[in-house]
Amino acid sequence: MTQPQSKINLSVQTENEETTGPFLFVCEHASHHIPEHLNSLGLDETARTAHIAWDPGAYGVARGLANLLNSPLISAQQSRLIYDLNRPPDAATAMAEASEAFDIPGNADLSQKERLRRTNEIYLPFHNEVRRLIAHRLAAGIQTILVTLHSFTPIYLGKPRTTELGIIHDTDATYANTLYNEAKAKLSLVTELNEPYDASDGVTHTLRLHAIPYGLQNAMLEIRNDLIRTEEDQSDMARKLAPILKSALNVTDKELTAAKG
Amino acid sequence: MTQPQSKINLSVQTENEETTGPFLFVCEHASHHIPEHLNSLGLDETARTAHIAWDPGAYGVARGLANLLNSPLISAQQSRLIYDLNRPPDAATAMAEASEAFDIPGNADLSQKERLRRTNEIYLPFHNEVRRLIAHRLAAGIQTILVTLHSFTPIYLGKPRTTELGIIHDTDATYANTLYNEAKAKLSLVTELNEPYDASDGVTHTLRLHAIPYGLQNAMLEIRNDLIRTEEDQSDMARKLAPILKSALNVTDKELTAAKG
Repeated sequence: MTQPQSKINLSVQTENEETTGPFLFVCEHASHHIPEHLNSLGLDETARTAHIAWDPGAYGVARGLANLLNSPLISAQQSRLIYDLNRPPDAATAMAEASEAFDIPGNADLSQKERLRRTNEIYLPFHNEVRRLIAHRLAAGIQTILVTLHSFTPIYLGKPRTTELGIIHDTDATYANTLYNEAKAKLSLVTELNEPYDASDGVTHTLRLHAIPYGLQNAMLEIRNDLIRTEEDQSDMARKLAPILKSALNVTDKELTAAKG
Repeated sequence: MTQPQSKINLSVQTENEETTGPFLFVCEHASHHIPEHLNSLGLDETARTAHIAWDPGAYGVARGLANLLNSPLISAQQSRLIYDLNRPPDAATAMAEASEAFDIPGNADLSQKERLRRTNEIYLPFHNEVRRLIAHRLAAGIQTILVTLHSFTPIYLGKPRTTELGIIHDTDATYANTLYNEAKAKLSLVTELNEPYDASDGVTHTLRLHAIPYGLQNAMLEIRNDLIRTEEDQSDMARKLAPILKSALNVTDKELTAAKG
């Protein structure tokens, strides 16, 4: 496949920038959009709109949460198959040649030039924008808890998954552990810690880049995508999760204040 | 003091960008330069050229190392008193009102607007540049060990310091520990681990932002500045340190390969 010459759309979208609520929501896989000049990465419609290309429903939930909690949201409105923003440039899964049962022809034998181009045009602008907003909030003294929103397929390689809500953490588990306890106690969802993935699968790159270095409280949410198919489902899920995110924060804040005192 | 209106010089300087040696050197406090419109931050010449304003000699050593080891160097050619690039925007020491025995009038009661301006014009461009170069090297498959270069005053608040070379680490001590052992065994310098500062003093921000999230081997070097006063001293120090940095890397590489195997 010949390499495309025109510029890839940056697709960094920031909403609610000026809000001062305590969360910053990030949705790396908000859309399955592939710019025309990339020729659908050689995929048919089924493959390029499947969960391998995006996290169905995650953006709707993230938007609902951002609005309910008066907090900003940064999302990438293009397919993760072009560049998976939750992976560093040296990861095989950043520009994957295959995902689940699908080969991705447009990513086969990528030249170093094309890897560098996608890194420059997608990876760096997205993460520079996340850092910019965090730095602004820190300079302004606004508390910031980083929450990334993802969804996962109910059936992976033919095997059904029973988890409905996964809460995943990196090296600082403080907020994620509290959130897990709150969700278990207050929601009627099958909630698991570090399911269906955990940090050893390389899925906490965004947390590592942006939360850990600044000591920000953080968590990655994974929602089973059959629960958030429609806009109504997504709004419902946001309404369920918002109070849990908030009450977990209250608990963590108290614990951290007590630990300092 | 009225806030300056004109733009602060970005002062991000990248040298040896295209080299493919295994190190990336970073020197956050390379110069005591203060752009004219900042009115010397209200300091007299003694204060604004003292060690509180920069790391005397560190840039010369960093440049020597970068050239000897065929590796890139990113430095900031302006005073750390405007913005200390090794600190996050919410740290009191990022735009310090006082340092050692000196008050810094130009940083007293900074407005939120001015804090945001310095964050935008100094902090973000510098760290975006470090991330850009790391991302490029990762995309191109070039091994990268992040080494930051600093110097410290031989007498702090009237107390002499005996350490000549300090090797400081954050949560991943692999390379720093090896480097410490190599330096102790092969150099005639009083070498200490995590002296005169350690991570709990907040001095590993650059390592946390750029090395830890990518799993890059890393270390922060602190050299007592009376040992690197002249250009000749700086070249000599670089010639001493270069083989140690290299041999420590060989040891660490072997250990990490063995651990994987």
